[in-house]
Amino acid sequence: MDRRSFLRTSTVGAGAAAATTLAAPAIAQGNRTLTLVTTWGRGLAGVHDSAQYFADNLTAATDGQLTVDLRAGGELVGAFEVFDAVSAGQADMYHGVDYYFLGQHPALSFFSQVPFGMNFQEYSNWFYHDGGRELADDLYSIFGLKAFPAGNTGPQSGGWFSKEINSPEDFQGLRFRMPGQGGQVLGKLGASVQNLPGSEVYQALSSGAIEGTEWIGPWADETAGFQEITNIYYTAGFHEPGPNLNVVLSQDVWDSLSPQHQKIVEQVARADNLWTMSLFMANNSAALQRLQQGGVQLQEFPDEVWDAFGAAAQEVIAEPMGDELYRRIHDSYMESLRSSAQWIERSEGAFAAQRNRVLGF
Amino acid sequence: MDRRSFLRTSTVGAGAAAATTLAAPAIAQGNRTLTLVTTWGRGLAGVHDSAQYFADNLTAATDGQLTVDLRAGGELVGAFEVFDAVSAGQADMYHGVDYYFLGQHPALSFFSQVPFGMNFQEYSNWFYHDGGRELADDLYSIFGLKAFPAGNTGPQSGGWFSKEINSPEDFQGLRFRMPGQGGQVLGKLGASVQNLPGSEVYQALSSGAIEGTEWIGPWADETAGFQEITNIYYTAGFHEPGPNLNVVLSQDVWDSLSPQHQKIVEQVARADNLWTMSLFMANNSAALQRLQQGGVQLQEFPDEVWDAFGAAAQEVIAEPMGDELYRRIHDSYMESLRSSAQWIERSEGAFAAQRNRVLGF
Repeated sequence: MDRRSFLRTSTVGAGAAAATTLAAPAIAQGNRTLTLVTTWGRGLAGVHDSAQYFADNLTAATDGQLTVDLRAGGELVGAFEVFDAVSAGQADMYHGVDYYFLGQHPALSFFSQVPFGMNFQEYSNWFYHDGGRELADDLYSIFGLKAFPAGNTGPQSGGWFSKEINSPEDFQGLRFRMPGQGGQVLGKLGASVQNLPGSEVYQALSSGAIEGTEWIGPWADETAGFQEITNIYYTAGFHEPGPNLNVVLSQDVWDSLSPQHQKIVEQVARADNLWTMSLFMANNSAALQRLQQGGVQLQEFPDEVWDAFGAAAQEVIAEPMGDELYRRIHDSYMESLRSSAQWIERSEGAFAAQRNRVLGF
Repeated sequence: MDRRSFLRTSTVGAGAAAATTLAAPAIAQGNRTLTLVTTWGRGLAGVHDSAQYFADNLTAATDGQLTVDLRAGGELVGAFEVFDAVSAGQADMYHGVDYYFLGQHPALSFFSQVPFGMNFQEYSNWFYHDGGRELADDLYSIFGLKAFPAGNTGPQSGGWFSKEINSPEDFQGLRFRMPGQGGQVLGKLGASVQNLPGSEVYQALSSGAIEGTEWIGPWADETAGFQEITNIYYTAGFHEPGPNLNVVLSQDVWDSLSPQHQKIVEQVARADNLWTMSLFMANNSAALQRLQQGGVQLQEFPDEVWDAFGAAAQEVIAEPMGDELYRRIHDSYMESLRSSAQWIERSEGAFAAQRNRVLGF
């Protein structure tokens, strides 16, 4: 899809349309205001913090020459409208996770999360050093966009369930919240999958509209309060071993920046990427202990269920292969993943196994 | 040791003394030149690249207002003289790894590498979010320094040996290059441990002055050429699961920077941290394949040897505990490590095991 035809067919929500005047660059005392919309509600732990980190540090590192005005999901446009809003020039940039926008292009999964796919380290290898960045430019430029990794949640938990999962059949008819290709996988197992922004999940779960949900991991999930509704929690999950969050600029805005400001955007996004990843990883262990002390039962899916996830994931990942760009990105991603995974297992994996054995961790 | 007594007793090499005039800030057309010395030779893959990344990006992100003049190890001061040179104000900052300077303070091991210690993710958790940064300020300020993580090599390989290691006794009398607390561990096993800068290792190994060495990992080791000398290569190692590289500024230089420029230094260092880590991790797998194709034999230490490493490491880590600051940093580091390791094993570890099983990686 080229950008022209996209713009013709794009339907941006009423919020975005109303925002046109608001988002026009404001020039005050030589400073330029850039509007940053997000896929996150303002109270969502970690992911909103990541967007705020980018906003605050870009403002500070440019001494306010680029002043970022952060509008969380729903404040200017809806959480799921940010891609169209920035593509159409109605906001300057967004911070979010792009598996919400697979309807715009299925290959956005590679720059957010593929089930059974890359973790943070593997994605960083691919994006910065093994062809990922160039392929992102090929994809996002179709929509007049320019993407920078700017955060990662680390491995996401399997999620909160109203009953234990003992076989793949337990997903039959289950009303479950999971976005992206992971949700498509659960659909193949017979689940009734819903895609909701994070800020709407608690209400849906507590009302019974959904019977289970994944969100992020112990810290963010505890903050969201799911343990108030159910106590069956699966820790490791197949669907998001390291979802990449992006800051995505309008290409026109990007092109209007000086080389210095472009460099600062790039550097702040990279700093955000690491800072956010470690924010989640640093908080999860203590949160998990608190959840356990509060009565949450920690579960692991049995191998049979993992096998079913794996078979369905292979199908889901293969379905868009008729698209030449999807296939090209897929091939690069998978080759890089296999290479990274082998080295990580031999080095970090072998070390961790010995350390935890020797020290009794 | 307070800074005053340090400065009285410090002996900086002749190179640093001669550099005093060279390193004075050069002001040209409103730009300020900052001299960056390093513990690396210019040809050392990854680590020199990491220093260059910081230099280039700080220059670009400040539009040359801070122009970094990179002097690799030996070009202005020797690789092992950079700490003293910056502490004494004879260079503005250095990029290096601080286990070279345990003679200045043993707690520098926590901000470079403790054997059986933190990997990159665990260190990032601790430094950015769990007390590490504040403790670094306590330590480095003694020497008039301000440190920022700015690179990591990822898990380092056990190293290159002239014979197979089948029991702890095989280290008796072995002339081996390994810096930091890892080297102290091998010393407890009876090895004759040498601490050499990277740029001197190839010559020492090829001349027989040492019988074995660790350096970094497959990519950097291949570039250094150790496979030309021996073909016995241990991949996983106990000594450096994720050594942290620092950019360390003179506190006086740091204090002289505007808030904007301080922010840019911080952000560029964080970006460098992630970029460098993924640079190594992205290149190791292919390098390992090339090494194997060239006849290198990949080895793993037996459990008995790991146990001996572990027992000696506990002794080495405990020895400086009479120093109050060392103990305070130790306690924070170990508590954070245990917490991070538990969550990583439950999340990333459990996922990777299932992924590699299901996909046959």
